Amino acid sequence: MAHIERAQAAAAAAGIDALLISPGPDLRYLTGYDALPLERLTCLVLPAHGEPFMVVPLLEKPAAQASAVGTLGIELVAWQETEDPYLLLAGRLPAGLIRVAVDNHMWAEKVLAFQDALPGARQVLAGPVLSELRMRKTPEEAASLKAAGAAIDRVHHQMADWLRPGRTEREVGKDIADAIIQSGHSRADFVIVASGPNGASPHHEVSERVIEAGDPVVVDIGGTMPDGYCSDSTRTYSVGEPPAEFATYYDVLLRAQMAQTEAARPGITAAELDAVGRDIIAAAGYGEFFIHRTGHGIGLETHEEPYIVSSSSRVLEPGMAFSIEPGIYLPGKHGARIEDIVICTEDGSERVNQTPRELRVI
Amino acid sequence: MAHIERAQAAAAAAGIDALLISPGPDLRYLTGYDALPLERLTCLVLPAHGEPFMVVPLLEKPAAQASAVGTLGIELVAWQETEDPYLLLAGRLPAGLIRVAVDNHMWAEKVLAFQDALPGARQVLAGPVLSELRMRKTPEEAASLKAAGAAIDRVHHQMADWLRPGRTEREVGKDIADAIIQSGHSRADFVIVASGPNGASPHHEVSERVIEAGDPVVVDIGGTMPDGYCSDSTRTYSVGEPPAEFATYYDVLLRAQMAQTEAARPGITAAELDAVGRDIIAAAGYGEFFIHRTGHGIGLETHEEPYIVSSSSRVLEPGMAFSIEPGIYLPGKHGARIEDIVICTEDGSERVNQTPRELRVI
Repeated sequence: MAHIERAQAAAAAAGIDALLISPGPDLRYLTGYDALPLERLTCLVLPAHGEPFMVVPLLEKPAAQASAVGTLGIELVAWQETEDPYLLLAGRLPAGLIRVAVDNHMWAEKVLAFQDALPGARQVLAGPVLSELRMRKTPEEAASLKAAGAAIDRVHHQMADWLRPGRTEREVGKDIADAIIQSGHSRADFVIVASGPNGASPHHEVSERVIEAGDPVVVDIGGTMPDGYCSDSTRTYSVGEPPAEFATYYDVLLRAQMAQTEAARPGITAAELDAVGRDIIAAAGYGEFFIHRTGHGIGLETHEEPYIVSSSSRVLEPGMAFSIEPGIYLPGKHGARIEDIVICTEDGSERVNQTPRELRVI
Repeated sequence: MAHIERAQAAAAAAGIDALLISPGPDLRYLTGYDALPLERLTCLVLPAHGEPFMVVPLLEKPAAQASAVGTLGIELVAWQETEDPYLLLAGRLPAGLIRVAVDNHMWAEKVLAFQDALPGARQVLAGPVLSELRMRKTPEEAASLKAAGAAIDRVHHQMADWLRPGRTEREVGKDIADAIIQSGHSRADFVIVASGPNGASPHHEVSERVIEAGDPVVVDIGGTMPDGYCSDSTRTYSVGEPPAEFATYYDVLLRAQMAQTEAARPGITAAELDAVGRDIIAAAGYGEFFIHRTGHGIGLETHEEPYIVSSSSRVLEPGMAFSIEPGIYLPGKHGARIEDIVICTEDGSERVNQTPRELRVI
């Protein structure tokens, strides 16, 4: 119940009368219940003052009871298919609510239904309250992220088995996806194999392109572990000797990424940490080719707070976990990215990914 | 562009000024673009009158362009990380919009951001407009559902290889999940292996329960094919000879499900079709143990319109595709469910699932 009580206190402090939490990472964080978002309403209700309860379809009640929710002593309010679950839920809240916060990932159909069922209450987002809790990882959560990092490292270690001239990105991607599962993840979330010119597109996934000798290949992969925590690590490989221009800027990128992982610590702001890498890349003349932010927080979602971006004045704190992933992208030619997840400690940070960052020629 | 033009015409007829469509099945239906919902805004905009356009993060533009969107001639409006994409989008719409429809699955954070960016417009749901289109499958979509049905049938055909006394539901579920992929799906969406008393919970998934001789086992499985269309089929097996009580009500259930698949045709209402099975089960004395609706539509989502439920007066039409899945659940004892996907033809319906429905004793 520790997470729930902290969320209720934070809601009260923010002037929010109740949090409405739908299936997804927030619900899992608060209760351990890994429910899928479905058309039928499942919703955890955390009044700022009062007892939490969860509205569930009658059909889902046994599953909810069998989940971690059952151990928390939260009342489960089941609704039948002929009932309106929004009115049922509203009827159990005190009258005169002023501000109700909805889960950031709640579907629009539920958001608008709650506007009708709670007509006097102004809707705001629960994200600002919950992300403040979720972004500061407990030691148990840090251990989960390290286990996820070790699992994805095992996949990168095997890359030479799959990355060969003559194979398509899609074929290599299939092998990687299988290995993500075999390494202990319960789900492969994304597999980017961006060879040659495809490497210049940061969000390229896989294609039918046949990998050729001399291709730089950006491999950005991640998955979700059985406990819900995510991995995410990028390494750039060269299939045979790379072009000279690539080798030159890869060294710049490596210096930038290493400087940033060194600089990550409590007290620095996200913007300052972003600048540590951006300045090195710009000084070498590649500033215009680093076209995205430095990184994103990670936990029960691959992308969450804190974002390491030039516009953020957020001061980093112990327990914050995020990616450091600068990149250099030359349109039409090739690109490179190096990504580790780091967790801020009391006086520095530790990387959860340990595969070598130097260019690996396969 | 046929789907987009029909959606624009339907929006105009419904008095909606613009449809805002986020990544998910609606976007895939309209454009073929299989984008993931992310924190960065990607949004297809279909004005009731005017040219469609899609707002995408600059980083995602190459992926969007390379997708089916690129062949449709839809303008891609890219936004940089320092821009507000909601204001960018609002600025390209005509002033004075009265009703704007948001995608049913759009995340709350986007819904509320659009309320701020389009303060004069009332938000309604896009679902009622789009589901009217999506629920009537074209011949190409029907062929996709049949291919998905054949793939999941191949998994049910192999069940005797995995379902044995002494194995846990989870072990069996793992084999099934692997087979769902091997059968041609790109993703396993759900695997229910509900043995013995777990069979009495319709939405049980898998557990550590060891399957015993004499256990009835409900196996409800489905996945998504590479083209996005979904499979969903349930068979109930008996590991060795089942209890006499089970065999009795299984025969009732089989009669009900067969009668419903026979009755599915244009002109009947969803409520009438639900009653065809419910009446048979009730007449045999098991009415109180059929605790859910008869079925749900299926297409690019496992659960979509039309729902085959007692409260729905919707008249079925050619092209509608849905599950017929009555069940009987005896709390604490066991349960059974039989599920096929059917597609309405001009004068009847066809089942996409062809595995035998009689009780299979393994």
